[in-house]
Amino acid sequence: MLIDLIISADDIKKEKLIDKTVVVIDMLRATSVITTALANGCNGVIPVLTIEEALAIAGEEREKYILGGERKALKIEGFDFSNSPLDYIKENVEGKTLVITTSNGTRAIKGSEGARNILIGAMINAKAVAKRILELNNDVVIVNAGTLGEFSMDDFICGGYIIDHITKEIEVDLTDIAATAHYIYTNNEDIISFIKYARHYKRIMELGLNDDLEYCCSKDCVDIVPEYNEGKIS
Amino acid sequence: MLIDLIISADDIKKEKLIDKTVVVIDMLRATSVITTALANGCNGVIPVLTIEEALAIAGEEREKYILGGERKALKIEGFDFSNSPLDYIKENVEGKTLVITTSNGTRAIKGSEGARNILIGAMINAKAVAKRILELNNDVVIVNAGTLGEFSMDDFICGGYIIDHITKEIEVDLTDIAATAHYIYTNNEDIISFIKYARHYKRIMELGLNDDLEYCCSKDCVDIVPEYNEGKIS
Repeated sequence: MLIDLIISADDIKKEKLIDKTVVVIDMLRATSVITTALANGCNGVIPVLTIEEALAIAGEEREKYILGGERKALKIEGFDFSNSPLDYIKENVEGKTLVITTSNGTRAIKGSEGARNILIGAMINAKAVAKRILELNNDVVIVNAGTLGEFSMDDFICGGYIIDHITKEIEVDLTDIAATAHYIYTNNEDIISFIKYARHYKRIMELGLNDDLEYCCSKDCVDIVPEYNEGKIS
Repeated sequence: MLIDLIISADDIKKEKLIDKTVVVIDMLRATSVITTALANGCNGVIPVLTIEEALAIAGEEREKYILGGERKALKIEGFDFSNSPLDYIKENVEGKTLVITTSNGTRAIKGSEGARNILIGAMINAKAVAKRILELNNDVVIVNAGTLGEFSMDDFICGGYIIDHITKEIEVDLTDIAATAHYIYTNNEDIISFIKYARHYKRIMELGLNDDLEYCCSKDCVDIVPEYNEGKIS
């Protein structure tokens, strides 16, 4: 099994994804939100690129949907919830379909179309993602969403953590970038000691989102692997 | 001063380089070769993308030129020297113009056209490069050549080392990828402890190029900064 890694949504090269297992990571916070919502009984998640698309989908039968996401890390006007995973508790999401649009994560998911499987990964479900990767037994490309088209430390170390789970089970080939992500994780198992240097981290702290951060860094606390297929994650 | 980093020649986005100081790094081995040749009295270096271009330039007055470079890390037929910096001693290069074509480095140099300044960097001249960056006092993009269009650990840690020199002199802003390169260097000041995991490193060892490796990892042993301008490095 070969594991490669793409450092941001803007750096996706489609030809690298064909026939591969892709894991999309936007741990702060889109893929943590999606994973949490589905674990709490949400029917499914529809990632869209624009606010207009989200409103159009929910428009017909508004009560069946919840609208979530962010622009510049803040809640979108007219939406039900922001991009905080802590909003996506059972009483808010059960039996509903979440339509989500975010600056980075949804773009990385849509940009990964063409892969054989598209898994949604975060720190909170890393172990479950690794287990699913082993079941699929296919070459892997980890797609980091990054932040505004740039490499982001938090997604990178999260990729390294998923790789760490896999290397504990089987021998794998790692590209240099995947090996570097793994190196970073093994030297920073507490996560925060590394991502405190990230620009995005500073923004999160400025916005007072410490609780989100703590939750998003909680390893393996959710045992599901969302998978994107034909426009919907379930 | 903002310092950013591009992870391979295939990942160059031209718009990121405009008006910037660019440092091109292919430490194993093209930028080490170029730096060594110029330090040893070579008149200038012409980087070209193809073997045919190199032969055409040298064809008219063959005695004025030396032809150097590699394909798949090996010497090119009809060329004078391989891509080993140890070949570029004074008696081989003095008073001659080097025409060089390599798999990664020359592509990264040509791909950086459009920047305000294009410096040639390696471990062997890192301190001199940092000093020149401080003189130019402009935002910086480090362009790692990488290996065959992929991120390469050796170029990455070399970028981190140049950043380390700069941060010891002034306060700088680092993008997440530049901060990660710096982190890698500060945790692996001996260099080899990190790049031993690189795929390219394995190839170098298989080819018995240990002496090249040792030389290319010798920090700051050359005090010049080659600069690329209108097709020529001097």
